[in-house]
Amino acid sequence: MLYSQFFIPTLKETPADAEVISHQLMLRAGMIRKLAAGIYTYLPLGLRSIRKFEQIVREEMNRAGAIELLMPAVQPAELWIESKRWSQYGKELLRFHDRKDAEFCMGPTHEEVITDIARREVKSYRQMPVNFYQIQTKFRDEIRPRFGLMRGREFIMKDAYSFDVDSAAADHSYEKMYDAYNRIFERCGLNFRAVEADTGSIGGSASHEFMVLASSGEDAIVSCNACRYAANVEKAEGRRGEAAAPGAAAVAKVHTPDTKTIAEVATFLGLPESATSKTLLLSDGDGKFVMALVRGDHELNELKLKNKLGWDDIRMATDEEILRFTGSPPGFLGPIGLKEPLTVVADYALLQMTNLVTGANEVDQHLTGVNPGRDFTPDQYADIRLIGAGDPCPRCEGGTLEVWRGIEVGHVFKLGTKYSGALQATYLDQEGKEQVIFMGCYGIGIGRTVAAAIEQNHDENGIIFPLPIAPFHCSVVAINAQKDEAVMAAARDIHDRLEAAGVEVLLDDRDERPGVKFKDHDLIGIPLRINVGGKNLADGKVEFKLRSGGEMLLLTPDEAVERVIADVRAALGGGK
Amino acid sequence: MLYSQFFIPTLKETPADAEVISHQLMLRAGMIRKLAAGIYTYLPLGLRSIRKFEQIVREEMNRAGAIELLMPAVQPAELWIESKRWSQYGKELLRFHDRKDAEFCMGPTHEEVITDIARREVKSYRQMPVNFYQIQTKFRDEIRPRFGLMRGREFIMKDAYSFDVDSAAADHSYEKMYDAYNRIFERCGLNFRAVEADTGSIGGSASHEFMVLASSGEDAIVSCNACRYAANVEKAEGRRGEAAAPGAAAVAKVHTPDTKTIAEVATFLGLPESATSKTLLLSDGDGKFVMALVRGDHELNELKLKNKLGWDDIRMATDEEILRFTGSPPGFLGPIGLKEPLTVVADYALLQMTNLVTGANEVDQHLTGVNPGRDFTPDQYADIRLIGAGDPCPRCEGGTLEVWRGIEVGHVFKLGTKYSGALQATYLDQEGKEQVIFMGCYGIGIGRTVAAAIEQNHDENGIIFPLPIAPFHCSVVAINAQKDEAVMAAARDIHDRLEAAGVEVLLDDRDERPGVKFKDHDLIGIPLRINVGGKNLADGKVEFKLRSGGEMLLLTPDEAVERVIADVRAALGGGK
Repeated sequence: MLYSQFFIPTLKETPADAEVISHQLMLRAGMIRKLAAGIYTYLPLGLRSIRKFEQIVREEMNRAGAIELLMPAVQPAELWIESKRWSQYGKELLRFHDRKDAEFCMGPTHEEVITDIARREVKSYRQMPVNFYQIQTKFRDEIRPRFGLMRGREFIMKDAYSFDVDSAAADHSYEKMYDAYNRIFERCGLNFRAVEADTGSIGGSASHEFMVLASSGEDAIVSCNACRYAANVEKAEGRRGEAAAPGAAAVAKVHTPDTKTIAEVATFLGLPESATSKTLLLSDGDGKFVMALVRGDHELNELKLKNKLGWDDIRMATDEEILRFTGSPPGFLGPIGLKEPLTVVADYALLQMTNLVTGANEVDQHLTGVNPGRDFTPDQYADIRLIGAGDPCPRCEGGTLEVWRGIEVGHVFKLGTKYSGALQATYLDQEGKEQVIFMGCYGIGIGRTVAAAIEQNHDENGIIFPLPIAPFHCSVVAINAQKDEAVMAAARDIHDRLEAAGVEVLLDDRDERPGVKFKDHDLIGIPLRINVGGKNLADGKVEFKLRSGGEMLLLTPDEAVERVIADVRAALGGGK
Repeated sequence: MLYSQFFIPTLKETPADAEVISHQLMLRAGMIRKLAAGIYTYLPLGLRSIRKFEQIVREEMNRAGAIELLMPAVQPAELWIESKRWSQYGKELLRFHDRKDAEFCMGPTHEEVITDIARREVKSYRQMPVNFYQIQTKFRDEIRPRFGLMRGREFIMKDAYSFDVDSAAADHSYEKMYDAYNRIFERCGLNFRAVEADTGSIGGSASHEFMVLASSGEDAIVSCNACRYAANVEKAEGRRGEAAAPGAAAVAKVHTPDTKTIAEVATFLGLPESATSKTLLLSDGDGKFVMALVRGDHELNELKLKNKLGWDDIRMATDEEILRFTGSPPGFLGPIGLKEPLTVVADYALLQMTNLVTGANEVDQHLTGVNPGRDFTPDQYADIRLIGAGDPCPRCEGGTLEVWRGIEVGHVFKLGTKYSGALQATYLDQEGKEQVIFMGCYGIGIGRTVAAAIEQNHDENGIIFPLPIAPFHCSVVAINAQKDEAVMAAARDIHDRLEAAGVEVLLDDRDERPGVKFKDHDLIGIPLRINVGGKNLADGKVEFKLRSGGEMLLLTPDEAVERVIADVRAALGGGK
């Protein structure tokens, strides 16, 4: 491909409204342009990367036995009413009326549509397992679309849906997708982790997120330094240790003026924060309340607590509610001496604590020498705290957790019968009995993965694409091409030989200064580069350079062509 | 691909709501399923054909130098307000509000979005010519979605937009697309015509439609039996002949009771219909009126008249309006003796008529012996009639027009500055002067082309796919595969050898009776078939058969493999 016949409108300046680096670089490299908030055009260069990644996804989905189809973007309300999501889904679901006033939505996901297909077409156990996938444009009316393709409103997604006769078979389909996802992101050359995750609004019994590691990631994840355990921090498990025997100290009320925070109380008492406790009052917003206790230096994980209690929602109690249950304003809560009965849930860490400090439910008063089990008994001990760096691994002995930042690019769910039950997708088993189908669903954000790859792979000069999803494999920069016919002839020859070998080449034939060209190629991040021209060419040599760094090599054109072909084969062959 | 691991839910019965054969067959062959009116899921088999055709389109667009990008489906109202189409486009434009109450539409076409990109990114004459295309999902809220993929609401379209410095350069871009379109439909193996067409609501100065010929086609087209002239009948041109000298007869009023139609008047007077004239009163619906005259046996082409007059709309006058202008009820109109002045446009055919019959603008009265130019003078003679079979070719001497039915699958337009002017898409020319960009736009209905191919190629047993867009090239039917290991081994061997040679094979390994399998393969229309099993296999032979007909051949497996590979190469190589 000749640069002059392609279209790469690079920008020198960083656009003001682009906050994250991938958004900035995709705009600057001429990969995308914004049409409206969260709605982007994929310019030719951006589309090439998108298509590369789609093809890797397609190949691995096919290899895993999934079958491609394509469902509509516009979906009738009826199906969403059947699944109950028409009312449950918030404003992210873009709803509208057609000219005959029938209600529709733009599909943010396709559980309803595929389950409708399955209930019509999959009627016998002999038709399963079956897994359908599509690569399709979705719409979610995000309240704050931002970060370019990272959190857009219109976006391309690969979504797959498996159908199985029972839970065990569904687990097997899930494993196949889990493996396929690992191969997909490996083939892209990305540093990623598959982590245990919360199932959120999609529902189901288990899920894993695939996280591309990047310091700018929105999600925190933990992984064990000794075993394969990894989880989203919101889901990461704490260990239940052995309960300690109560300590010897007696409960004493201490006047603790001007100490509202845990740090202030600990300092005032001359104790480490880990000797104190943190008490929180929470509500489901619908009349239910719970008191939660964690160690002073720990943080409550509200999501875990909510899941533990089976609540639909969770929020901190108001000052008035705290006053009602404890008789005290916030800042002095504790489990002893409540005004009204409350369910008390203590984190596992409390099991090991003795002689701890709690609030006294009175202004400027705390209790010391409190021993759980002796002075108060929680309704239950549970894993309700946020796990962090240095915590012990919940799966292996001796392993310690590390914390990473990650960008969620894929998510696999065991759905069970959530949708098949609601839409009555049933089949006849071997005995001719009607049974509900078991489902799984599996998503990959196509544009988001390309953006995440850039978040992980860039430097101050621009993108450093992993070769498998780079828009081109190799740049050939013809230096002063318009002034020197020999340069253009040599560059063209290299271009043609590489193309004939299946290498995707971008030949920069523009009438621009070499510095301008080099800057553009650094920006757009093509992994391999050959510079042709000048004194080197007169000496029968060209420059070969990796975008990722390392020395500039002087090679003969033959050597450079061989080297590029070898590098491309190595990068593409690795995952296949 | 094993049939048992693919998903082809064929239907024995023809669905009741499918009117046209392609819709019936695509449903029966398990290619598509309806989600809502005009909204379809492409099942795996259907998607394969769609993707095949997309790839042919992509290759030919790339070969013509067009550059692929991808624009959003959801478009902000602002751009449509700028182009004035927000108010002009009817209810086919699906409009809605996002959660912040901003107005958007689902893109039925992308002139506005691409022109917006061009005005931002194409600023110099040096950046042109440039042609952007996409293969993208569009939405048009048709009032009567019908015929399956033929007239859906959500549909896949290839749309391209060219940008040029002036009209001559734009013509050149248009020619390139015209040629590319011819190659595309040729490569698909379709019988088609490129015809001159009306520009309709898209606007612009010239256009061609690409029509797949099929007796079920919605459009009538004409083509010359002697030269390359072809046109949509709505656009087909009439010849202006030499004017005849007025005839000798004098005007006479004749009482013509019970004669309202042309046929009745002609019979009553003992004249051929071609000796009479037909007079019509039409309005633009906004206060303007015109009287149109055509020969009695001809039909007025309202579209031509509307374009001639430069009207935005055209409709027949009401009985009251006729009374007002002529003093008579409908059925007796004529150009002589009007009550109010009217513009009169006569078809070219009137130039050659003498002593003709017209209405007398009185109940049950006609005039005979009327001679145009002597007894009344039209404001203009023009080409305003519908052209049909047997009419002379407007381009060559001696050629005669034939009429065909066709399905519009592609349309190319010279847009001029319609959109670039409205959106102020300008560039700096070589002298640094600001100029308006000249545009063209070029569409192909992807799903509609596949449906049209089926309309053109089928028989009573099902689809007969042209090989380049068939979902698979070759079926291998293993007869009693589940009962006979040798059959499956032989079939599998043929399958593997064909796949290794790049042939797309569907191996029917199902536990079904041979008759069921044969019926399914006939229905889904895979062009080549090898039947493996039975006595033939014992004799070292397999059956080879073309879906399009001809004899069943008995070949050795080696011969059959060679034959399939040769047939596939011939069919795919033809257009490349």
